[in-house]
Amino acid sequence: MLQLTEIDRVVALALAEDVGLGDVTSLATVPEQEQGRAVFLAKATGVLAGVSIIGRVYTQVDPRVTVEVLVEDGARLTPGTRVAAVQGPARSLLTGERVALNFVQHLSGIATRTARFVDLVQGTGARIVDTRKTVPGLRALAKYAVRAGGGTNHRFALYDGILIKDNHIRASGGIRPAVERARAHAGHLLRVEVEAETLEQVQEALDAGADVVMLDNMDLETRRQAVAMCRGRALTEASGGIEEDTVRAIAEAGVDLISIGALTHSVTALDISLDWE
Amino acid sequence: MLQLTEIDRVVALALAEDVGLGDVTSLATVPEQEQGRAVFLAKATGVLAGVSIIGRVYTQVDPRVTVEVLVEDGARLTPGTRVAAVQGPARSLLTGERVALNFVQHLSGIATRTARFVDLVQGTGARIVDTRKTVPGLRALAKYAVRAGGGTNHRFALYDGILIKDNHIRASGGIRPAVERARAHAGHLLRVEVEAETLEQVQEALDAGADVVMLDNMDLETRRQAVAMCRGRALTEASGGIEEDTVRAIAEAGVDLISIGALTHSVTALDISLDWE
Amino acid sequence: MLQLTEIDRVVALALAEDVGLGDVTSLATVPEQEQGRAVFLAKATGVLAGVSIIGRVYTQVDPRVTVEVLVEDGARLTPGTRVAAVQGPARSLLTGERVALNFVQHLSGIATRTARFVDLVQGTGARIVDTRKTVPGLRALAKYAVRAGGGTNHRFALYDGILIKDNHIRASGGIRPAVERARAHAGHLLRVEVEAETLEQVQEALDAGADVVMLDNMDLETRRQAVAMCRGRALTEASGGIEEDTVRAIAEAGVDLISIGALTHSVTALDISLDWE
Amino acid sequence: MLQLTEIDRVVALALAEDVGLGDVTSLATVPEQEQGRAVFLAKATGVLAGVSIIGRVYTQVDPRVTVEVLVEDGARLTPGTRVAAVQGPARSLLTGERVALNFVQHLSGIATRTARFVDLVQGTGARIVDTRKTVPGLRALAKYAVRAGGGTNHRFALYDGILIKDNHIRASGGIRPAVERARAHAGHLLRVEVEAETLEQVQEALDAGADVVMLDNMDLETRRQAVAMCRGRALTEASGGIEEDTVRAIAEAGVDLISIGALTHSVTALDISLDWE
Amino acid sequence: MLQLTEIDRVVALALAEDVGLGDVTSLATVPEQEQGRAVFLAKATGVLAGVSIIGRVYTQVDPRVTVEVLVEDGARLTPGTRVAAVQGPARSLLTGERVALNFVQHLSGIATRTARFVDLVQGTGARIVDTRKTVPGLRALAKYAVRAGGGTNHRFALYDGILIKDNHIRASGGIRPAVERARAHAGHLLRVEVEAETLEQVQEALDAGADVVMLDNMDLETRRQAVAMCRGRALTEASGGIEEDTVRAIAEAGVDLISIGALTHSVTALDISLDWE
Amino acid sequence: MLQLTEIDRVVALALAEDVGLGDVTSLATVPEQEQGRAVFLAKATGVLAGVSIIGRVYTQVDPRVTVEVLVEDGARLTPGTRVAAVQGPARSLLTGERVALNFVQHLSGIATRTARFVDLVQGTGARIVDTRKTVPGLRALAKYAVRAGGGTNHRFALYDGILIKDNHIRASGGIRPAVERARAHAGHLLRVEVEAETLEQVQEALDAGADVVMLDNMDLETRRQAVAMCRGRALTEASGGIEEDTVRAIAEAGVDLISIGALTHSVTALDISLDWE
Repeated sequence: MLQLTEIDRVVALALAEDVGLGDVTSLATVPEQEQGRAVFLAKATGVLAGVSIIGRVYTQVDPRVTVEVLVEDGARLTPGTRVAAVQGPARSLLTGERVALNFVQHLSGIATRTARFVDLVQGTGARIVDTRKTVPGLRALAKYAVRAGGGTNHRFALYDGILIKDNHIRASGGIRPAVERARAHAGHLLRVEVEAETLEQVQEALDAGADVVMLDNMDLETRRQAVAMCRGRALTEASGGIEEDTVRAIAEAGVDLISIGALTHSVTALDISLDWE
Repeated sequence: MLQLTEIDRVVALALAEDVGLGDVTSLATVPEQEQGRAVFLAKATGVLAGVSIIGRVYTQVDPRVTVEVLVEDGARLTPGTRVAAVQGPARSLLTGERVALNFVQHLSGIATRTARFVDLVQGTGARIVDTRKTVPGLRALAKYAVRAGGGTNHRFALYDGILIKDNHIRASGGIRPAVERARAHAGHLLRVEVEAETLEQVQEALDAGADVVMLDNMDLETRRQAVAMCRGRALTEASGGIEEDTVRAIAEAGVDLISIGALTHSVTALDISLDWE
Repeated sequence: MLQLTEIDRVVALALAEDVGLGDVTSLATVPEQEQGRAVFLAKATGVLAGVSIIGRVYTQVDPRVTVEVLVEDGARLTPGTRVAAVQGPARSLLTGERVALNFVQHLSGIATRTARFVDLVQGTGARIVDTRKTVPGLRALAKYAVRAGGGTNHRFALYDGILIKDNHIRASGGIRPAVERARAHAGHLLRVEVEAETLEQVQEALDAGADVVMLDNMDLETRRQAVAMCRGRALTEASGGIEEDTVRAIAEAGVDLISIGALTHSVTALDISLDWE
Repeated sequence: MLQLTEIDRVVALALAEDVGLGDVTSLATVPEQEQGRAVFLAKATGVLAGVSIIGRVYTQVDPRVTVEVLVEDGARLTPGTRVAAVQGPARSLLTGERVALNFVQHLSGIATRTARFVDLVQGTGARIVDTRKTVPGLRALAKYAVRAGGGTNHRFALYDGILIKDNHIRASGGIRPAVERARAHAGHLLRVEVEAETLEQVQEALDAGADVVMLDNMDLETRRQAVAMCRGRALTEASGGIEEDTVRAIAEAGVDLISIGALTHSVTALDISLDWE
Repeated sequence: MLQLTEIDRVVALALAEDVGLGDVTSLATVPEQEQGRAVFLAKATGVLAGVSIIGRVYTQVDPRVTVEVLVEDGARLTPGTRVAAVQGPARSLLTGERVALNFVQHLSGIATRTARFVDLVQGTGARIVDTRKTVPGLRALAKYAVRAGGGTNHRFALYDGILIKDNHIRASGGIRPAVERARAHAGHLLRVEVEAETLEQVQEALDAGADVVMLDNMDLETRRQAVAMCRGRALTEASGGIEEDTVRAIAEAGVDLISIGALTHSVTALDISLDWE
Repeated sequence: MLQLTEIDRVVALALAEDVGLGDVTSLATVPEQEQGRAVFLAKATGVLAGVSIIGRVYTQVDPRVTVEVLVEDGARLTPGTRVAAVQGPARSLLTGERVALNFVQHLSGIATRTARFVDLVQGTGARIVDTRKTVPGLRALAKYAVRAGGGTNHRFALYDGILIKDNHIRASGGIRPAVERARAHAGHLLRVEVEAETLEQVQEALDAGADVVMLDNMDLETRRQAVAMCRGRALTEASGGIEEDTVRAIAEAGVDLISIGALTHSVTALDISLDWE
């Protein structure tokens, strides 16, 4: 589901920075003819994302390496799950190992945390969404990993969605003029979301015709009231410091979307390793 | 200390993915003439890294924005520390905000964790070093952030250091032939490090003339003995699952270097925000 | 309002293809010290777009050339209007001339035609919008020129708006499932537009909850009825073979948007020349 | 006859600007397994150019799409002519459709107009040639389309031909010194063409040894005399505001070449569409 | 006279390969504040070329370094000639040194050998020209250096000149059809040169209307006769294994051009060093 | 042993500069269907390097060309040795010929000279190494060619080895502080080499713990004494103006490494041609 060229570009960058002029250790110590076989193996519990990148890495490192994907993205992994098998010149297996792992561990880390949140809100109707708080250069992959974990993507960037925050409101002279300007100047296929921190702002946003209201850093009770106000008029998105122990209650407050920056800005790599056979 | 062109390249990538064709919200809602002033403010305790990137981001977004750096990389931050002040067209301040924050939060997250480890081993003589387990595309910046946090860099990539791991050893027919081949084929300015998991392997590595011995996944007592064996003959590097509660004891075992993948592969973004004035 | 880096990239491509290794004629015949002064002059009636590109071209050709913009984008030009004055080394003025003209003539051609349509619908409330039918590589500039001519931009690309056409409908098994899938999978900040060729399809689109209905290739009377059906429920966009002699009646039928591919796919360059003084 | 890499580069740019992070409509509404078959169909009369680009577009979008070219470049099209057939995943057919059409419609528009001029001068011995007035970024393709329409290419750029215009002459101190300098400094494989607006200038150009004389903006009778003067000494090129209703007479005046900027600077896209089967 | 962007691109490549992630020696040993001053000094006799590249290198390495050019390209150097002075942060001076020298030494090597040949044929009217036998990636610079040495450039590449060699002739069925096809298909501003190895071929080339005849690998007497045959009808170019001890006689045989591949394919770097003050 | 992407990048650059928009001669004179077969043939005695690049060139020019490598890199060539055979469309064979030859002749020139030096020191234990004095843009290939000739690579660039020269020493306040800083700040896998011009400096370098001492521009006797001082404590590298007639004596003085800039900065292309069959 990811554009191949998008992957290939970041893979090329990653190989350039890790391999560059060559893997001097493998070139020096491993005979050119030596063949090998190894398995990408989960060492922890989590959700897989980015497994197809392994193939893209080895295509660039050495097209003679064959990669067999054993589990698809989105699969639940437990310690010992065999993720993918690689076979080919031993030197090349070693040269591509770290870059492949860096991608899969990072993306699976994102998918794993997303899946935990998605599990926690199951049955409530709320969707877990990401933010633009991604590690520079990896946004497309990070957003893909959120989907692999069962989450939904918020706008991808500044160009494909309108989100009017407090500073935009201040500079426009209020919520109403801000929304009106957005309607007048932006493409008619982009919806308008307005950030609100109080119920008064929620009301203003609704009156101005906002399509979505972001309930930012509100307490639970206020969020409940805001949801009631918005019902039938606008979607609601809860945002701001949402943790695993608070997300269920927020979802039960009736919001449509719950956005969590930590899904992508604070990633714990999922432990996966390349074991030789 | 970072190469400007290196930063500029990743900044350009980050802006391309976040801004692309334009920040439709700001373009629509913020008047072109509106000026603004805002401050990058720490919201948590930690160590700063990457502050100069703020300037590089705004140079690309809009050269009319002026950036004043108020604290240097490596500084300890507490909630409320003013990190940098920006001033200029309000639209442009808003457009560059997220990309600037994504960099500084990620890199400061690395520096902060590194500093915690460095503090924990203070006085022992052991150096905290990073690994090649970095988020793809950001290696140079991640390694820089480790230095900002008081750590030291291990080899940058596969091309600037020789680290012979178990698979290289197996493919070469033993530690001795592996080290000899490395000496014969690699440049004479690269040292040779050998991974050892047992004391027998440590002895073999020393006999083969290794410059550095990596003590991988050993228990504390074994590491102590290994250090004793290596004294005066080779540097020692402890590696493998080292946590904040175990690092001090490992350092006191006398190793020269302690490498920690989590410094860069599992980063918790440091909370920094852009507050308008 | 255009991103400088976006312009600079296409300007660099254009100079690479036109100048490449050098302007052999000017290098051979014009003395290096020769200075010149020239004016970009309108030779026809129209609307200006892209004047700032002249400066970007000469910055790349030779930073010693100074460019003074005399009229802003969006201005009405008549034969003889002085658009911009350039001054500097004669060789460099000559070398950059053709590339600068190729940009300004093409973009002003787009703005001019857009303005004619905008004038024709004045007072009706209908907005003239563009399409994705642009010359490859120039979309950002072409869309900018439409705005300079008083038009409004439709979605920029396939990623920032959902437009469900007949083939999507067929593949989804109907308008309702197509709209539902779009709602479920796409970001919540993207609106859903559905193409309809009959009133039955208009009704289906409304029932499915479309935000915008495209009235494609309908006759005037059908469009009027469709507008009545959609009022208060969805925006309407007229599309398909709209010409200067039919656009007014369509606008008066009450549609919100009128999209015209010819604005950008069939451009008549506006006659502008560089006259030496 | 076009270099593949040249096409691939512009195709990649065009896909980047149109598809970018993905075709959200097709991804959301069209099932991944859905297959499709469609035909590129002429809707108007004209000359085909760029048909091979369809294959290059789909190679980049999705290599599983097969493209069968049914008519070669240069062929005369009438409404209903089947140009190419594509088959494969429905999503991918839809994703690549617009970019493929934008190329083929634009290039066929160039070929069509060129062919009209070529037809008009048939039998006279005059060749229809293009200019450097091309849409930025597409010169190689535009020049190719002129050839597909039966025209001949003038110099490609500033580096592969010497064309001394009035400003070069002024800066050199006359036609003779300009031609002499060109001979002395430029490569010996480049011919020298001189622009002349009067018969005196034609004579000067001949005396200076010009290989080609451009008869710029002359009336018919003057052009006739100029041709007589140049016979056996230099080629002649008519240039300046040549239209379909004047080109025949100019050709009959005996010029060797007739250059027409509008071939490439004012292109009417040829109507071609992708029809599903 | 060189396009800045052309230089900057190759300079960036050269710095990427030599500096990459940083000059670890200078970063480690030279204090950040240390300033320095140094001079690019000739250590041998020769002709300078590429001095402006020094400035382009340091602009990219560190814009705080100032570069003062003391001698212009084309100047005769003797041991001790001060070529350029640089001043600024000592680290940066050291980091850019090697790349700057690699360019200037290589290009001055080309200019020096060219000048020797030019001196040898002085007064004969023959021009020394280069070939396409250049080190990959440096053609524009190599051709520039030939000019700095007093030589003239042959065609730059395959696209800006027609040179029909024996294999083209064979594939075309003879010199006449080859020349006719070239005339018919190539742009009218490109001349046609034909390679001849015998006087019969010279005659055929003349009869076919060649503009230039290449006298390839002929002995002196044959070249003399060929020149006589071509006089007034075509330019003549001597080619093939021409050395310093044979070039004068060949020039005196009356050829217009003498092409020498060794000017650019076998370059002896001119000894220039960076001396600290 | 060379990274394919590295080769492909420089090959693409070389083709862009030599072929660009097309080989007008071949396109005009050689019929599209014409097939050909030709052989890359040595015309001189030497050592082959870069033969695999022939295949990479033709892959980019026209994938229908088949390339059969007949001799491997490192092989000794004599006049008449068949190096590689190519077969395919005649036009494409001609179009790629020059670029392929430029690479192979240059790299074989490097390998040939390297092999001469390697032969001269045979049996002494000294290794011939290269320097960073390479033609800009070709370092990876140049270093590869040195290996093909039997030489060994010194550090690749400024980032993979520490070499403290006189200017670093001066700026650091002496050899000892320079070496200590290098040890403290640089990665622990990089060795430290120190340049010495006198025996006093050799002693200082040893005392400071240098891993390698460069004996720069010393006379033979001084080098002998330096070698004696360093034995068992540091490697020694002779450097500075070493020629074919002096290298043997230097090697016999007992140095470990002999570095020669001329291997790569002053290359005589090895004569190889493409002969048609």
